[in-house]
Amino acid sequence: MEDILIANNKKKSSELIEELRGLTPIFECTIATTQTAKIQGISAAGAYPEITDYTPPADVELLFYGKCKCISGVPVTPDGIPTPALITRSALELAEISTFVVNAGLNIKPYVPFMEVGGKSGESIVTGKAVSSDREASEIKEVFERSVLLGKELAKTADYLVMGESIPGGTTTALAVLLALGIDAEGKVSSSMPNNPHDIKIDTVNKAMKSAQITKGALKDSPLSAISKVGDPMQVVHTGIAIGAKDKIPVMLAGGTQMAAILALIDATVSNTDNIFIGTTKWIIEDKTSDLKGLVNQIADIPILAANLDFSAISTSNQGLQKYEEGTVKEGVGAGGASIAAMLRKGEINKEVLLKRIKQNYEKLIN
Amino acid sequence: MEDILIANNKKKSSELIEELRGLTPIFECTIATTQTAKIQGISAAGAYPEITDYTPPADVELLFYGKCKCISGVPVTPDGIPTPALITRSALELAEISTFVVNAGLNIKPYVPFMEVGGKSGESIVTGKAVSSDREASEIKEVFERSVLLGKELAKTADYLVMGESIPGGTTTALAVLLALGIDAEGKVSSSMPNNPHDIKIDTVNKAMKSAQITKGALKDSPLSAISKVGDPMQVVHTGIAIGAKDKIPVMLAGGTQMAAILALIDATVSNTDNIFIGTTKWIIEDKTSDLKGLVNQIADIPILAANLDFSAISTSNQGLQKYEEGTVKEGVGAGGASIAAMLRKGEINKEVLLKRIKQNYEKLIN
Repeated sequence: MEDILIANNKKKSSELIEELRGLTPIFECTIATTQTAKIQGISAAGAYPEITDYTPPADVELLFYGKCKCISGVPVTPDGIPTPALITRSALELAEISTFVVNAGLNIKPYVPFMEVGGKSGESIVTGKAVSSDREASEIKEVFERSVLLGKELAKTADYLVMGESIPGGTTTALAVLLALGIDAEGKVSSSMPNNPHDIKIDTVNKAMKSAQITKGALKDSPLSAISKVGDPMQVVHTGIAIGAKDKIPVMLAGGTQMAAILALIDATVSNTDNIFIGTTKWIIEDKTSDLKGLVNQIADIPILAANLDFSAISTSNQGLQKYEEGTVKEGVGAGGASIAAMLRKGEINKEVLLKRIKQNYEKLIN
Repeated sequence: MEDILIANNKKKSSELIEELRGLTPIFECTIATTQTAKIQGISAAGAYPEITDYTPPADVELLFYGKCKCISGVPVTPDGIPTPALITRSALELAEISTFVVNAGLNIKPYVPFMEVGGKSGESIVTGKAVSSDREASEIKEVFERSVLLGKELAKTADYLVMGESIPGGTTTALAVLLALGIDAEGKVSSSMPNNPHDIKIDTVNKAMKSAQITKGALKDSPLSAISKVGDPMQVVHTGIAIGAKDKIPVMLAGGTQMAAILALIDATVSNTDNIFIGTTKWIIEDKTSDLKGLVNQIADIPILAANLDFSAISTSNQGLQKYEEGTVKEGVGAGGASIAAMLRKGEINKEVLLKRIKQNYEKLIN
């Protein structure tokens, strides 16, 4: 079986794989929090809604140290399934890929070096004022512009950019932004839970759009306004960095259906998605409860690559990793993209080598 | 006349120049403030002592935008001579060198993307508790360790690192740290003023050492303690980043005699200065009021390169730049190192091309 699956635009995807082989990327991880994650039933990125503030900083601490500092243990779902940052850590460590964390808006800061672009944590989208209130309309623009600048600087030193994220509640804000931009997205965004709570998400988004006094497609020409009303802080920064970098180097949006929202935001901002592609996991492209490809192709026929990780054969002293095969977690912290980048960078890294390292790192954590 | 002068260890310096030619560095700029700068007569990096808080953020804004955002105009000396960030900006712009700003401790944050490592602005060294009080001894260690991590990440993506700084008052804190580490430094540190105020500096440092209850050389085995008592926040971060990067790539300490203090701190921390060299300006190596080479050779016989910039022939509508030839400013914001890196990166950039761009950028600012 191949290491990297192609899930869209076979020709461009195959060419891209050959183009990127052996190159040295930078892994960038945009982290933020939104009060949206604290709505009961929305997010599994944290055992309890209240602790989702700690998930993004803990995730990036895991990337740097192989363990977390701001919490004991690691972020887990309510069932105890470990964060996908474990996969990302293993991939970046094996391939020695440079990692930059960007704070898009956090309440709790991580104990790692991180980049500031002026962002603040997000409100619940049901307020209709999700990222900076009307009073601060210039603030979101300032954060966006600083992110564009950062993207330009990263593009001067990296062969290509791999852009992951950690923001609990991010698929719900993705749904809201996709709808505000006029993309048919209902029932199509993914979830970190096996039973995708589409009803709760749609209900939340309907409340958000009502509060913001907008209808579907109403903000298709106002992407920053869509984020400001019903999005999240990660989206501002991720969109900005991608736009800043893409004129010079290929940019991989590393994630699941949240990255369809970023793609839509890029398209709405600069009417051009050249050099943009998506890197994700097998679990996302095989997910029956969501439709990444269906979302992406409403925007642009770009390459979608997927790391062909299979955790069913992993034997560890507990079952945390095997649960990924049942549809828990699926993606996050750029796990799929980092895995793809690691396998492309060094010939000796294939999915078996990566799996072995993931297992080792997991056992270090639980023992 | 050559573009790059060799000021120490001719053999290693010549080899280094050939080794670095055509390579792609990252320019890193560590910025911080210390209350030490507000002692009357210490610093010319700001027209008035009170506004030295704005100099570092304004300097890095100039690097990104070609103009400042947090102040009107640009940082100038009391005589109106413009900041060396103007030189750095011109060099980085011409050679398209990736720029990362690191906040080591500021009261005023810049409107650019910048890296956080947990640092806080410094107290006056005359307190003997210059960087984090005794109560927070673990804090300086934490900032140092995060800086080491950052250095490791930068080293994975850059061919070599050019490390500049902006911290008003930095030569006085350099003097104090050099003495605490046992280096014969009195009368040897440089100044941004033509008449180097050695008496004020020595008087300040004597007060600092008295408050800290230390004698010369007392902290030669405790570099972080030396910074904590009589140093500045830039030194913690700069030393950490250099140590993190130097095992993998060459590291240019870009500056004047402040970089001798960083060299001494590196040596005291890891007993090894391999891969470290200094990049500065002609104005520093020709300065009769200071002795960079004399400081460096007490620590290690490393290469010292100097950008051979000559501003005497520049004709502009005002005399700001020509004053550099009279010994004002001399260096700062990695001006010399950035110039060297730009000339090494692209064959078509020589000192004449660089001078022309500096003149253009200066005229844009004053007209």
